[in-house]
Amino acid sequence: MSSQKTMVGKVNADVLSFTVGKDAVLDRELVDADCIGTAAHVTMLQRLSVKPSLFSIKERDDVIAELVEIMRRGRKGQFKILASDQDVHLAVERTLTKKLGDVGKRIHTARSRNDQVAVDLRLYAKEELLGLLLDSVELSSVLLSFAKKHKMWPMVGRTHLQPAMPSTVGLWASAHAESLLDDISCLESAYQLNDRCPLGSAAGYGVPLAIDRELTSKLLNFAEPIHNVLYASNARGKCESVIVASLSQVMLSLSRLSEDMILYSMPEFAYFKLPAELCTGSSIMPQKKNPDVLELVRAKVARVLADSTAITGILKGLPGGYNRDLQEIKEPFMESMQTTRASVKIMIDMVKSLKADKKALHAAFTPEVFAADRALELVAEGASFRDSYNQVRDDLESLQVDDLGAAMLKRTHLGAGAGLDIDFLMKRSKEVGVKVKRTRVRYYAAISKLLGTKYSDLSI
Amino acid sequence: MSSQKTMVGKVNADVLSFTVGKDAVLDRELVDADCIGTAAHVTMLQRLSVKPSLFSIKERDDVIAELVEIMRRGRKGQFKILASDQDVHLAVERTLTKKLGDVGKRIHTARSRNDQVAVDLRLYAKEELLGLLLDSVELSSVLLSFAKKHKMWPMVGRTHLQPAMPSTVGLWASAHAESLLDDISCLESAYQLNDRCPLGSAAGYGVPLAIDRELTSKLLNFAEPIHNVLYASNARGKCESVIVASLSQVMLSLSRLSEDMILYSMPEFAYFKLPAELCTGSSIMPQKKNPDVLELVRAKVARVLADSTAITGILKGLPGGYNRDLQEIKEPFMESMQTTRASVKIMIDMVKSLKADKKALHAAFTPEVFAADRALELVAEGASFRDSYNQVRDDLESLQVDDLGAAMLKRTHLGAGAGLDIDFLMKRSKEVGVKVKRTRVRYYAAISKLLGTKYSDLSI
Amino acid sequence: MSSQKTMVGKVNADVLSFTVGKDAVLDRELVDADCIGTAAHVTMLQRLSVKPSLFSIKERDDVIAELVEIMRRGRKGQFKILASDQDVHLAVERTLTKKLGDVGKRIHTARSRNDQVAVDLRLYAKEELLGLLLDSVELSSVLLSFAKKHKMWPMVGRTHLQPAMPSTVGLWASAHAESLLDDISCLESAYQLNDRCPLGSAAGYGVPLAIDRELTSKLLNFAEPIHNVLYASNARGKCESVIVASLSQVMLSLSRLSEDMILYSMPEFAYFKLPAELCTGSSIMPQKKNPDVLELVRAKVARVLADSTAITGILKGLPGGYNRDLQEIKEPFMESMQTTRASVKIMIDMVKSLKADKKALHAAFTPEVFAADRALELVAEGASFRDSYNQVRDDLESLQVDDLGAAMLKRTHLGAGAGLDIDFLMKRSKEVGVKVKRTRVRYYAAISKLLGTKYSDLSI
Amino acid sequence: MSSQKTMVGKVNADVLSFTVGKDAVLDRELVDADCIGTAAHVTMLQRLSVKPSLFSIKERDDVIAELVEIMRRGRKGQFKILASDQDVHLAVERTLTKKLGDVGKRIHTARSRNDQVAVDLRLYAKEELLGLLLDSVELSSVLLSFAKKHKMWPMVGRTHLQPAMPSTVGLWASAHAESLLDDISCLESAYQLNDRCPLGSAAGYGVPLAIDRELTSKLLNFAEPIHNVLYASNARGKCESVIVASLSQVMLSLSRLSEDMILYSMPEFAYFKLPAELCTGSSIMPQKKNPDVLELVRAKVARVLADSTAITGILKGLPGGYNRDLQEIKEPFMESMQTTRASVKIMIDMVKSLKADKKALHAAFTPEVFAADRALELVAEGASFRDSYNQVRDDLESLQVDDLGAAMLKRTHLGAGAGLDIDFLMKRSKEVGVKVKRTRVRYYAAISKLLGTKYSDLSI
Repeated sequence: MSSQKTMVGKVNADVLSFTVGKDAVLDRELVDADCIGTAAHVTMLQRLSVKPSLFSIKERDDVIAELVEIMRRGRKGQFKILASDQDVHLAVERTLTKKLGDVGKRIHTARSRNDQVAVDLRLYAKEELLGLLLDSVELSSVLLSFAKKHKMWPMVGRTHLQPAMPSTVGLWASAHAESLLDDISCLESAYQLNDRCPLGSAAGYGVPLAIDRELTSKLLNFAEPIHNVLYASNARGKCESVIVASLSQVMLSLSRLSEDMILYSMPEFAYFKLPAELCTGSSIMPQKKNPDVLELVRAKVARVLADSTAITGILKGLPGGYNRDLQEIKEPFMESMQTTRASVKIMIDMVKSLKADKKALHAAFTPEVFAADRALELVAEGASFRDSYNQVRDDLESLQVDDLGAAMLKRTHLGAGAGLDIDFLMKRSKEVGVKVKRTRVRYYAAISKLLGTKYSDLSI
Repeated sequence: MSSQKTMVGKVNADVLSFTVGKDAVLDRELVDADCIGTAAHVTMLQRLSVKPSLFSIKERDDVIAELVEIMRRGRKGQFKILASDQDVHLAVERTLTKKLGDVGKRIHTARSRNDQVAVDLRLYAKEELLGLLLDSVELSSVLLSFAKKHKMWPMVGRTHLQPAMPSTVGLWASAHAESLLDDISCLESAYQLNDRCPLGSAAGYGVPLAIDRELTSKLLNFAEPIHNVLYASNARGKCESVIVASLSQVMLSLSRLSEDMILYSMPEFAYFKLPAELCTGSSIMPQKKNPDVLELVRAKVARVLADSTAITGILKGLPGGYNRDLQEIKEPFMESMQTTRASVKIMIDMVKSLKADKKALHAAFTPEVFAADRALELVAEGASFRDSYNQVRDDLESLQVDDLGAAMLKRTHLGAGAGLDIDFLMKRSKEVGVKVKRTRVRYYAAISKLLGTKYSDLSI
Repeated sequence: MSSQKTMVGKVNADVLSFTVGKDAVLDRELVDADCIGTAAHVTMLQRLSVKPSLFSIKERDDVIAELVEIMRRGRKGQFKILASDQDVHLAVERTLTKKLGDVGKRIHTARSRNDQVAVDLRLYAKEELLGLLLDSVELSSVLLSFAKKHKMWPMVGRTHLQPAMPSTVGLWASAHAESLLDDISCLESAYQLNDRCPLGSAAGYGVPLAIDRELTSKLLNFAEPIHNVLYASNARGKCESVIVASLSQVMLSLSRLSEDMILYSMPEFAYFKLPAELCTGSSIMPQKKNPDVLELVRAKVARVLADSTAITGILKGLPGGYNRDLQEIKEPFMESMQTTRASVKIMIDMVKSLKADKKALHAAFTPEVFAADRALELVAEGASFRDSYNQVRDDLESLQVDDLGAAMLKRTHLGAGAGLDIDFLMKRSKEVGVKVKRTRVRYYAAISKLLGTKYSDLSI
Repeated sequence: MSSQKTMVGKVNADVLSFTVGKDAVLDRELVDADCIGTAAHVTMLQRLSVKPSLFSIKERDDVIAELVEIMRRGRKGQFKILASDQDVHLAVERTLTKKLGDVGKRIHTARSRNDQVAVDLRLYAKEELLGLLLDSVELSSVLLSFAKKHKMWPMVGRTHLQPAMPSTVGLWASAHAESLLDDISCLESAYQLNDRCPLGSAAGYGVPLAIDRELTSKLLNFAEPIHNVLYASNARGKCESVIVASLSQVMLSLSRLSEDMILYSMPEFAYFKLPAELCTGSSIMPQKKNPDVLELVRAKVARVLADSTAITGILKGLPGGYNRDLQEIKEPFMESMQTTRASVKIMIDMVKSLKADKKALHAAFTPEVFAADRALELVAEGASFRDSYNQVRDDLESLQVDDLGAAMLKRTHLGAGAGLDIDFLMKRSKEVGVKVKRTRVRYYAAISKLLGTKYSDLSI
């Protein structure tokens, strides 16, 4: 067994390969976050009043300039993470040391890699959650537009997939939108939990040096530092699992939406139609226009749920203090984030292109759909509900299809077909959008200040 | 195959038994919630200005008096749910009809069982989450007291379970407490999502009757009604899965705490000791005092995580509108709630009884624990961190055990051993406790008003 | 905190209640297994040539007579497991000691409760797996009969739920049957893994007494003893998780079958119809006949999958040697077994009652369904497949519905509509049934011999 | 939204990217399998007696020569799968068509991509399972060698992690080996389920052409074809989930082994020691030698369990017939296979390098460890076990450490410390190894014959 030299000691080559795993690939997504975190750390070290001082202002500026350069190269795919680096953290340290010599060797003063990956993942999550929030707001908005356009179009309401009661396309589409609005509040809660700075935990036990954790937290625009440094380390995985639980909610909303769209675009219903270019064909059947996107979204729900299971499964039974197990959380965490974002984005396209077919929607109404309405008419004539119910059940043949327009208009109470306030939901959706955008502006401003250059320019 | 008569039609006996499942047992826990929900529904129906009126004030009062009577019997285990009832909803309707005749047959006007179970589970969750929040606050408080008492007791900090750096019992215990404080914020978010009233959805499509959904929401002290009635139905399962995700976080915190306590009470460490009466024996080994409670808590973490998987697994792939699949969510939901509550409660006992052993804690310090401190001393003398690190690594033999008191005092920054502000965490914990208690007072007041009797008396 | 006396020491009352959990209830299902295991253990101890002998033949017979009596009472629900017993094992020991005095105190010689629960669960699994195998064979047979009866009834074959190619009801039903045949082979593998005797492990490290583990294994009709006694202990959970994984396969087959039946019994398809008494009604909609059973089966799939997750989640991260965590495996293990058995049984009823509607099946054929057939006709005329495919795709309008009978008869190759050998599958199904019944006869004979009474009589 | 041309129609670019997903990457691992499957399909088509014949012998040979060339390029990483190909199947068809013109366009006659991916994954699984079986046999063998070398070295046996009874290193290590032997039997069962040929299902409904499914099955060395062609399609996912369930068992065995090695290599135990080059360091603590590999293996257990959850979650609720959801199974299936293989391989290295420390093992014995032995001595003197147990419990202070050698020798029964038959387990392990190797030889011979070139040479 051959050994390989790393910055932190010699390691057997197989062990190195096994332990590095996919970090060299996954960490490419963390170059920005790692540089930003390091910029905050070095800025803080520079301001510490210790003798000899750890960094001069000039040295700090040099480091930050170099970090910005690394970020630029990272975005172009030109920043390399070597196997012997093990991860982005040591790759950045190596690069700084190569460029700046001794100054580079000092950046790891009073921190550990656990510290770094913890802050990197929180910065990554910030960025991604803000993006996902905006996408989810857009999807809810697109659904609400669809609902508004088809507000009173009749659609058979089903329970147990069997025809149940008169309903509308407006009710159907805005139900999916309101589900997303609840998911958005879950994403916001997760965002808040994530919005605390772990930096300064070092290996989980702090350092014998009077570092300023409140400063780094502020420089990075976190709401506040995590207090206890051991908890800052133990929180690895907790934060990720709360976030992925919120992603699961988004995906479950997409699951129901996809399933409905798959079912109701079958030719036997034909309520909805997707344009051919959003469907895919078959290698053997020339006629096929399949809703592959919707099926893949449905399957990806199970994937994200499993990512959540992976993360909590890793945490279960772990003792306190850093354990390498936590590294394995990175992939399901980042994967589920990317999957959820891609799924929401593609569903925006799908819903935008969705066409409803009024004729098919009307044709689906059969007399049975009006049974409960008939029972309530008997109630209005003075009978008890249960007696009316029994009376209708015993004479289902006498039911007939009501005037659809009139039937729709009967449901006037809050949130029913004719009592639906789509503007109210639209307003909620917009308010969240505005709030999220403001948060992002503040965040980008803080990072731009820290780096001395406009962060959003970098990010394009 | 024999058939059996139910309130809603004849059903094959095997099918009835299969479909009722454990509802007859589980629903015993929902008697209160079902009666409260019905009280609100009937109160609303009574206030509707329809002709003929659905309920007179007298009839409404009779119904509510009878509901209170059912609740009293339920608490004494005297309210029976028969298989032919299928569930608590029809058992209550049957009882009311038996007692009040025609009036009982009218209570189901403009609602469905889906409606009822949706509101029942939200009321159940309210009560349980408030209780769990208070228990979790207590556990965090007990941990913080333990932390305060042993604040500067030295304890070897570990990473990868290997000795890493000097740390303290205070840091260890308050890290667990801060983890719970994060969990508590997850529970609060889940509480808020739950705090919306689904009533008035009927079978998911509303009713052709101008019911007042805002009134029932208010009577039941919900923050607001869910808007879209189809979403009110589709939200079944979503709400439960968000709640169980928050329970999972609590359980994961207990997982780490249990694992730490199991490890550090092994005789090879002996940092902590549990009194014999909190341990259990062996049927074959007379000497055994086993930490069974901690092991069971650790295992129950996996159970609650699996309950979460069950719920999301049921939801995955479901189309919109009520599907009977949702019934299967009830058991993992209620089970995980009860498991989490029992686990938190027993951990309060465990932590309260925990003894720390100063001698054993001191004995665990070996020279290696001071390696990083030594490297930072070299930094203080002007060397770069990476060079200092390499120097110490090449001469580990020269390390020695520092004065423990002094070593502890060196970590003064925010959240480190000597920079730990336990009072700050204690204050947070107390504030949540006060807030939760206030919420509960308001909730009980509203229900008492609705029922015309003091609800908390009933509940004892 | 009050304490309570148990057979193995005083325990705090809350701790006792927490640690006993549901054992007092679950263990009611294990009374038979526990008595049988004890009968084998005592028979073995009696035959040991140690001085003084541990049991005389008379004492052994007395113990067994008393065990048979406990089994009889157990079946009538008259054998009580008290909280202070903690579990069935100590309840049996208590009862024997009460009846037989000192002899009862000797039965625990050279074994531990871990030992007992390990063997109990394997005996429980044997009995249940044999029953489930026979039920699964019956379900496959019922499906094959349905397939045979409707062998060449045309049914649109779908991919992506969209109409794809001509197919038959025979293909549809026998596909579900063949899936079950694969599941049956999974159940058989699990049965074989389970068929090894853990007894004699004691607490996992054997005993300083020359017990005869091969004898107990033989008395209990196991294929062989597990060799290493520590592995006999560590195998707890592994065996259960392999079994539950095989149950999951059965449930996944039922998932697909249920989903198909739900979809194709919607009025828009109406291929299949279930009799009213196998459906259930709605509390608000008088017309409803809902396929609740199928929906519940679909949901129970997720439950059994989660039980599997619970078990493997408990095992993950556990060290070797007995840990109390293993107790928590019992409930998901027994639950998933009961759920799977109930689901298979009810599906037998469902399939037996299923009616196919030839008219509806025919009506579903549209010209597009014949697109691939048309392309292959062009191939037969000499064109390449890809060119034929493109030609058909460019002229979909010219397609027409072929003669259905002729179309069905074109698929003559192995396993296609007209090449389906249902008798071949039926034969496989029957062979397994015969094999399983033989295994059960041998098992019952061995137990009857051990107990000196006919075991199958007891079991009715 | 721009569109992109594919072999099977125009698709929107975003949709194409979303639906292709990671296939272009994952399918690189399937180039061999796809070419082999195509070789069998074309060979079968060539032998069909249809007029005009589909392939001449020459054309068939040309296709196969080209397939072998693709395989060679694939192994060198030179075979490109383009996004517009969507997957390996169309990439191969495109390449063949480019090279061979019209002949390439004919290879897709009478099959679909679903068909291909189904057979590809089964061929992939064959190869990987055979490799994993051999690796697992080696790990069991390495553990047994370790057990043999340290057979009677005393080691405290623990339950609940607390010292329990005298035990040996031989018992500890061979328990882990026997666990693997059970896993190996699970892998073998999964192999058998996998060993059936799905080819000829086309889109799940066969083709109107008399293809010879038994021939392709035989050419590919499968045990037999899956019978029903719809089941051949529905079995996608089932086969994978059975395989991953067997991988989970292997991983759970590694979980326990890793956890034990992590615990007992802590300095407080020091029973075992790993060489420094198999450990990894810390970026901040110069002294650290962490068992990262073992922690990562422990975490990867949770990953593989989650992969299993992903697959079964995708299947849950799916209707019959191909659905695109199945594509999402590929990644967790292939990932869990690779993870399990890598984990077993690295554990072989770990166990091979493991050193036991006799002094530390001896030092761990405390008087309490002998409590059960003392009770059984009293039994030997004529007391009942329960009375002996109580007597020892009341006088634990009088216990003392026995002569360790003698204590070890007292456990002579089957499978206990001194009754352990390591050669018996070793023999089992070897027998499986021989059997697996033979299977592989037969498989490679068949493929070599089909391709007309030595397959194992290709594979190096």
